[in-house]
Amino acid sequence: MAGVQKVVRVLSAAASTVGAFIRLKILTPTVRTFSESRSLSQNVSGIMWNLGRLNHVAVAVPDLQMAKSFYKNVLGAQVSEVVPVPEHGVSVVFVELGNTKLELLHPLGNQSPIEGFLQKNKAGGMHHICIEVDDIEAAVTDLKQKKIRILSDKAKIGAHGKPVIFLHPKDCGGVLVELEQA
Amino acid sequence: MAGVQKVVRVLSAAASTVGAFIRLKILTPTVRTFSESRSLSQNVSGIMWNLGRLNHVAVAVPDLQMAKSFYKNVLGAQVSEVVPVPEHGVSVVFVELGNTKLELLHPLGNQSPIEGFLQKNKAGGMHHICIEVDDIEAAVTDLKQKKIRILSDKAKIGAHGKPVIFLHPKDCGGVLVELEQA
Repeated sequence: MAGVQKVVRVLSAAASTVGAFIRLKILTPTVRTFSESRSLSQNVSGIMWNLGRLNHVAVAVPDLQMAKSFYKNVLGAQVSEVVPVPEHGVSVVFVELGNTKLELLHPLGNQSPIEGFLQKNKAGGMHHICIEVDDIEAAVTDLKQKKIRILSDKAKIGAHGKPVIFLHPKDCGGVLVELEQA
Repeated sequence: MAGVQKVVRVLSAAASTVGAFIRLKILTPTVRTFSESRSLSQNVSGIMWNLGRLNHVAVAVPDLQMAKSFYKNVLGAQVSEVVPVPEHGVSVVFVELGNTKLELLHPLGNQSPIEGFLQKNKAGGMHHICIEVDDIEAAVTDLKQKKIRILSDKAKIGAHGKPVIFLHPKDCGGVLVELEQA
């Protein structure tokens, strides 16, 4: 356990650094000091972009009111009302966890992107994770060069009104990964 | 979209409040002002406990080095070395995202708790989410009263060296939820 605890301590220190970076970045968005101390992988193709914080975990649920009630009344979380987002084929309840949020998704309309997922996973389940990036266009160019499959030709406006892309789960260890312009 | 953006703004404001609460709480752990402004659900049984931040999202992967390489070399994330945690039957790579982390899990030994999951999900996938709580014993008592199935009689020491419980996915909208003492 000592090894794990050491790693946790190292990561906690790293998290503090990242937090400091995020605050710094808000003040001075062109400062890229943190990226220089991270992996240089983004730089292989000469394209600079940085991965940011976890924006949300999306959970597809067969019964939105029941799921909302679980997080609100059983776990005591802050939850939003049901928000219809017809242009993305979902109704959403936002569950606030302080550092990030869960988004409970239920199909809306006839062509919901989560309909197939719920047919395969009747009880619901985790659908995707969304991570912020500082330059979505640079990310698209870089990821294409790295042969990562993107589920659209270019970034589209997502449910938060910002450009997003989705990466193919088979290129991401089985996880559907959404990248969103911060 | 205006509705969504409004909710996002409200949640952003809420997140700031939560952030302030968390900082306040570190300084004065007995202050419970935030819980009073949240849902009163925790109080139904007279038992006080509070849900906290998302500690991590656990991802089961069939190839730990490949998954580590994806997050490090493709996405440019900060990742740890492989950490064997034999008492929990997994090897772990921690992926730091600033506000929270991913934990990439691969089976270790003969009785790994994620072996069955990977047999059903050959490409890997999201295994569970872990949310912190301020009083795990109070949470156990409260959740039992609320008829939520807990996958152990009482809290056990988890991979971070802190007491944890796992809630039955069928009681949590299809998601395996770990609660960890903060």
